Amino acid sequence: MPPFAAGIDLGGTNIAAGVADLASSRLVSTVSRPTGRGRPWEAIARDMAAAVREAAAAAGLDPGQLAGVGVGIPGTCDQRGTALYVTNLGWTSLPLGPFLSRELGLPVRLSNDANCAVLAEGAAGAAVGYRDVAMVTIGTGLGSGFLIGGRLFEGGWGAGAEMGHMVIRSGEGPVCNCGRQGCWEVFASATALIRQTREAAEANPHSLLWQQWGGKLDQIDGRTAFDAAAQGDPVARQVVDRYLWYLGEGLVSLVNIFRPQILLLGGGVSAQGEALLAPLRRRLAEDCYAGSLVPIPRLAVAALGNDAGILGAALLLNPQSTVL
Amino acid sequence: MPPFAAGIDLGGTNIAAGVADLASSRLVSTVSRPTGRGRPWEAIARDMAAAVREAAAAAGLDPGQLAGVGVGIPGTCDQRGTALYVTNLGWTSLPLGPFLSRELGLPVRLSNDANCAVLAEGAAGAAVGYRDVAMVTIGTGLGSGFLIGGRLFEGGWGAGAEMGHMVIRSGEGPVCNCGRQGCWEVFASATALIRQTREAAEANPHSLLWQQWGGKLDQIDGRTAFDAAAQGDPVARQVVDRYLWYLGEGLVSLVNIFRPQILLLGGGVSAQGEALLAPLRRRLAEDCYAGSLVPIPRLAVAALGNDAGILGAALLLNPQSTVL
Repeated sequence: MPPFAAGIDLGGTNIAAGVADLASSRLVSTVSRPTGRGRPWEAIARDMAAAVREAAAAAGLDPGQLAGVGVGIPGTCDQRGTALYVTNLGWTSLPLGPFLSRELGLPVRLSNDANCAVLAEGAAGAAVGYRDVAMVTIGTGLGSGFLIGGRLFEGGWGAGAEMGHMVIRSGEGPVCNCGRQGCWEVFASATALIRQTREAAEANPHSLLWQQWGGKLDQIDGRTAFDAAAQGDPVARQVVDRYLWYLGEGLVSLVNIFRPQILLLGGGVSAQGEALLAPLRRRLAEDCYAGSLVPIPRLAVAALGNDAGILGAALLLNPQSTVL
Repeated sequence: MPPFAAGIDLGGTNIAAGVADLASSRLVSTVSRPTGRGRPWEAIARDMAAAVREAAAAAGLDPGQLAGVGVGIPGTCDQRGTALYVTNLGWTSLPLGPFLSRELGLPVRLSNDANCAVLAEGAAGAAVGYRDVAMVTIGTGLGSGFLIGGRLFEGGWGAGAEMGHMVIRSGEGPVCNCGRQGCWEVFASATALIRQTREAAEANPHSLLWQQWGGKLDQIDGRTAFDAAAQGDPVARQVVDRYLWYLGEGLVSLVNIFRPQILLLGGGVSAQGEALLAPLRRRLAEDCYAGSLVPIPRLAVAALGNDAGILGAALLLNPQSTVL
């Protein structure tokens, strides 16, 4: 089999594509073009195919020299290449894989974007050398990906590993986009942190949070509470502490279920580094099941950033990469 | 390798052992003797070795003809054969595997009893023919076991798959034996159902529950609320409905994480059959992530009963049986 494959990281804003050397797990070219959300899905899919041709050319290859194309999608897909449920793009049950396969004359494999990210981190990022790896991506939603024995675990029909839709506070909080109430994602995503920060600012007119952001609540982001807490604002400190509690609550359950050797955090909020990691490490040591007798996973920030999605998608073409 | 292995199901009350034909996944002999809880652990371990010799003799075999011995323990162990944490027996970090191995001159492998049960159900019980299987054992605690791609998933260090210690109601309810508050086990084990039934009886002196059981609250068991509900007691109906809600809350999360093709319930409460399964099937169909687009697992009761523990323990000796 040829040692190169293409990967596509399909986002709501951009189609990022590249060619990876499967032997070394390195990207040899990357390209990007706008997704153009709202267009017919076939138009977006044709642009995905064009991005693959462009990435191949940039790598000095003909598309026919590729082992195939992997696609990381921000949603749920199955192992036949159907994009089942992509909220961001309003897609339901579209035959994206078969369409791309016909366009390019290549095998195509789809997976969730969080699955691609952990595959890349395991091959060339922060989890190199570890066999059992969990990664939680803290963004608009809460994505999760798992390597078991060095291979990607996608769940039956390729549709599992949706740890963000594990309930941690049954019947509480805003209703999740999955329809349940109490999902981890609703308490611990970046979206949740922003909501919690805004609510605290509005409820506390004497806080630094309100003084700095009261007039521009819509500009509050995932950094705001961490920044204000670092400046000594007790209200912001409370927001951060409560957010870390929610995040830790799910991470402890994740450890009890998967017991990975390393647990990576990715997404925007993970840029907080030690302000995030240090309290979570204490939490894991205190609360994981049989924590004094069984090792606690190493907790670290993911290393590859946005490239993880492209590289991991390409690595789906490695036949040894998946558990199922 | 010889086609026979011994399995031991170590319980708080009995040591049940047997010899299994690995090729057909059938038990060819079983024996049982009291655990004698409270004795030094080496005395219990020597009786475990004696039970293996007895089971081998009953099968017409010499222990030396066995491929090895598998042990299912009601707690956490590691892959070196250390019994790390067995609450029921008060054991912490004991070298049970190496001890048995020296006693018998055979390879010994330990795993959690819920792991053994799912391995047996997959090989010869209710999950034959399924590759991705989850099993939840509803007993004193809430045990869980998983097959992924037909192989046993134990988690890193052999210490994962502890789904009972996933928090579903953060910060609520009695403190779990793991030290956290809100664990699924505390709301959905048989112990939890009994507690909920007693509390409802005490709080409702006009209920059938109180009339039948008020004088003997300590005799309430996991059947009581189901029986009284079937007799039309609205208080018991409420206990059952709320219990099923808690049980379903964790099962939906389990499906979102593992997406098995089949989900088995075992343990005493599973004897309720359709009274338990029918409402849970509706719940899974309504609440699982992308439930209208991705298949919902089949829900069924485990088939092998107590033999599952012995058979599954023996099957640990099949080198193809585990994921890690």
